[in-house]
Amino acid sequence: MTESRAHLLSRLADLLGPKGLLTESDAIAPYTRDWRSLFEGPALAVLRPASTEELCAALRHIARHPERIDLVPQGGNTGLCGGATPLPAGRQSAPEMIVSLERMRAVAPVDRTDGTLLAEAGVTLAAAQDAAAAAGMVLPLSIASEGSAQIGGIVATNAGGSKALRYGSARELVAGLEAVLVDGTRLDLLRSLRKDNTGYALRQLLVGSEGTLAFITRARLRLRPALSRREVAFCALPDAAAVIRLFDLFQSRAGDVLEAFEFIAGAAMEVALAHLDGLTFPLAEPADAYVLVELAGQETTLRETMESVLEAALEGDIVTDAVLGDSEARKAALWKLREEQSEAQRLAGASIKHDISVPVPSVPELIDRATAACRALLPGVRVCPFGHVGDGNIHFNLVQPEGMDPAAFLREGEAMTDAIHDVVHALGGSFSAEHGVGQLKTEMMESWRGGAELALMRRIKAAFDPDGRLNPGKVIPLD
Amino acid sequence: MTESRAHLLSRLADLLGPKGLLTESDAIAPYTRDWRSLFEGPALAVLRPASTEELCAALRHIARHPERIDLVPQGGNTGLCGGATPLPAGRQSAPEMIVSLERMRAVAPVDRTDGTLLAEAGVTLAAAQDAAAAAGMVLPLSIASEGSAQIGGIVATNAGGSKALRYGSARELVAGLEAVLVDGTRLDLLRSLRKDNTGYALRQLLVGSEGTLAFITRARLRLRPALSRREVAFCALPDAAAVIRLFDLFQSRAGDVLEAFEFIAGAAMEVALAHLDGLTFPLAEPADAYVLVELAGQETTLRETMESVLEAALEGDIVTDAVLGDSEARKAALWKLREEQSEAQRLAGASIKHDISVPVPSVPELIDRATAACRALLPGVRVCPFGHVGDGNIHFNLVQPEGMDPAAFLREGEAMTDAIHDVVHALGGSFSAEHGVGQLKTEMMESWRGGAELALMRRIKAAFDPDGRLNPGKVIPLD
Repeated sequence: MTESRAHLLSRLADLLGPKGLLTESDAIAPYTRDWRSLFEGPALAVLRPASTEELCAALRHIARHPERIDLVPQGGNTGLCGGATPLPAGRQSAPEMIVSLERMRAVAPVDRTDGTLLAEAGVTLAAAQDAAAAAGMVLPLSIASEGSAQIGGIVATNAGGSKALRYGSARELVAGLEAVLVDGTRLDLLRSLRKDNTGYALRQLLVGSEGTLAFITRARLRLRPALSRREVAFCALPDAAAVIRLFDLFQSRAGDVLEAFEFIAGAAMEVALAHLDGLTFPLAEPADAYVLVELAGQETTLRETMESVLEAALEGDIVTDAVLGDSEARKAALWKLREEQSEAQRLAGASIKHDISVPVPSVPELIDRATAACRALLPGVRVCPFGHVGDGNIHFNLVQPEGMDPAAFLREGEAMTDAIHDVVHALGGSFSAEHGVGQLKTEMMESWRGGAELALMRRIKAAFDPDGRLNPGKVIPLD
Repeated sequence: MTESRAHLLSRLADLLGPKGLLTESDAIAPYTRDWRSLFEGPALAVLRPASTEELCAALRHIARHPERIDLVPQGGNTGLCGGATPLPAGRQSAPEMIVSLERMRAVAPVDRTDGTLLAEAGVTLAAAQDAAAAAGMVLPLSIASEGSAQIGGIVATNAGGSKALRYGSARELVAGLEAVLVDGTRLDLLRSLRKDNTGYALRQLLVGSEGTLAFITRARLRLRPALSRREVAFCALPDAAAVIRLFDLFQSRAGDVLEAFEFIAGAAMEVALAHLDGLTFPLAEPADAYVLVELAGQETTLRETMESVLEAALEGDIVTDAVLGDSEARKAALWKLREEQSEAQRLAGASIKHDISVPVPSVPELIDRATAACRALLPGVRVCPFGHVGDGNIHFNLVQPEGMDPAAFLREGEAMTDAIHDVVHALGGSFSAEHGVGQLKTEMMESWRGGAELALMRRIKAAFDPDGRLNPGKVIPLD
């Protein structure tokens, strides 16, 4: 280590204290790879400031340091695209330091009239949900990793989930932000105003920027009143086209109380029932497609609404069979059929995931065309799409044929991924509906969002981070 | 006129046709001033392209022209801050041309499954609402000028209105955009995806940028299913603090069906009843504060919900009296008490308006402190606040004392405006809740949004418009 670099680390240690700076390789190691160990890269240190002020001071020291140091913000390290992991050694332009705000865990008391919750970046999503519930309200954002995902990362990646249909993704819930630029400048965008047309939407720009424009240090999140009643139904449908007809019916007859509308392909349900003991299939006959629908509201007539829409769907041959959850336990059991899909697919062998979305009307065409394309490439592949069909966001997952060598299946996977992405591209869709670009998908940006769009993104990146020192190689392709 | 400039105009005339280019002073005149004739500035020409392609081609010609030409986008010319009017002659850095997209009026057929409407920039908000209604859906955005305001301007100014409480402002309704940069580059951000985490939120940045970053040429707007039932109540309350307590009660008991929550000060109602013949006061006694509340939904129990919340409010002394609209005509009559406030104030003499917002919990403090400050400065001034209290967005209007000379009142106005803004600033509010910055309020940007925030806005402006030729002197202060 150079004398100058040792001097910088000693200054940072003085500033951040023993808990605030990790430099030993054992201590750093967990931060240098993602939770699935798919991405890994070396780091000079991990900075763990206890406050926004400490972060600003540390960044100012680093900016003044004569040697270039790049910085990688990391939240709960639950991402799927390597957006919070340092670049591999060969791809780093400069030594990288990781910045974790996990010690910043304060939640301010909820003001019910304001209807917002102010949390520091290191608060887990689950802790924020709990704080909202303690005030009799709801933070309507839920994802599988909510126990460890942190608010900073939730905002930086514009997290979605199954409630986005009704309440939007993180973007729609962010009422205020505090952020810090790479040079240590603090940006106070916390003001809790529902209407404020004073200049450019900087907050919106930071949401979903995956830590490439600024560090998110605090967020004010919009809450909703708790809803006292919910109804859950599980329906069998003849095909994917019927799924969209059912969605239309619920939209027009119960659109104001539609809380979730989730699709599960017949093949996916077969895999789930074969590999998970705890699941009970609630209908008499298997079908090509299933929908789990939830209504939530405060009206006593919610059950009647659900029943009348389902009756119309049965009469119109949109639905062939349906069951209602008539107790909290039954509702949870129905939801489990949807929630356990990922776990079932993991138990079924090697699988390949695609985080795609298309316009909602194109969902049946996506499913039909992409399924046919995959089966043509690899007969026997189990095509198991499921997910947030009301958002056009399908988890288009492929499970290996029974008995096939997993490694051989994964080798075949690239061609099927290309085939699926070709269909998505033709339908005007996205290759990253929920999970972001990270370092995994930067090379897709040119062909999917290239030209004027990517050129503007590069200029915006330079406006926030002129030297490109903040999370380089993420979102925006390196030159 | 220089030979070169005449040559440019002749090229533009060839390109845009006789309807597409106005150069005669009589033809240009209506575009060179705002509808209230408060702002006026000269223009070399008005460009009225009939398509995005024509606009792109015209902008490319202008960019190649050796002399600098600045460009001012103009929608329905209904703005209140001069954002769509050329700068006054003395403040222009270069000759300005106005660009109106009023000939671009196509609306694509509504896809109910997608739940969006695709409209060209020149479509009026009212025409877009009609197109949604014809498809059995609702475009949940409503403002007083909707008959002439155009979609391009609605998006560019992030228009709000009374439905923003439930559905958000224009920002929340924009599902896709087409825009054109000042050099003629087309930006296609139209894709209709509810989930798409691929890079920076360019669409969000364009919403509310007041024509300073790009021309909005087309917008895809999110629709809602039509709601079959609505209930309207008009309530008397003892004071502004009770208004917030009533808001809390409705939020917690009927938050999922709360369509509007509008406040009218007692003094404002007095002015309205004194100056408008068509109004009927529906309660027995006058009060210090009134609230108009609307619930909307598809449930048959909506009336019971409204009644039970009002009963609780009466029992808790939050509300002293209330009346329900028991027919469509009665509901309209109750809404008229709110909607005619501006007209009544106009009839009452000179008035001064303030487009402010504060966090919702601070509304009573705003009203009490700002009212006292104004009365201390000018005894007899009629302080008439009303508006979207559920959004924290109060139209804090002052009406001249009876019998005072209007010009003298307006001269006193500046001190009262400063006093109101001081209270708003202290409460962490905004000086431009709905109407934007335009050219009217650029000099407030430094003190309210200065430092790192305004510096970033300047760099973003340069990223889109490096030469500063697009709507100069609007939003971002000139150097």
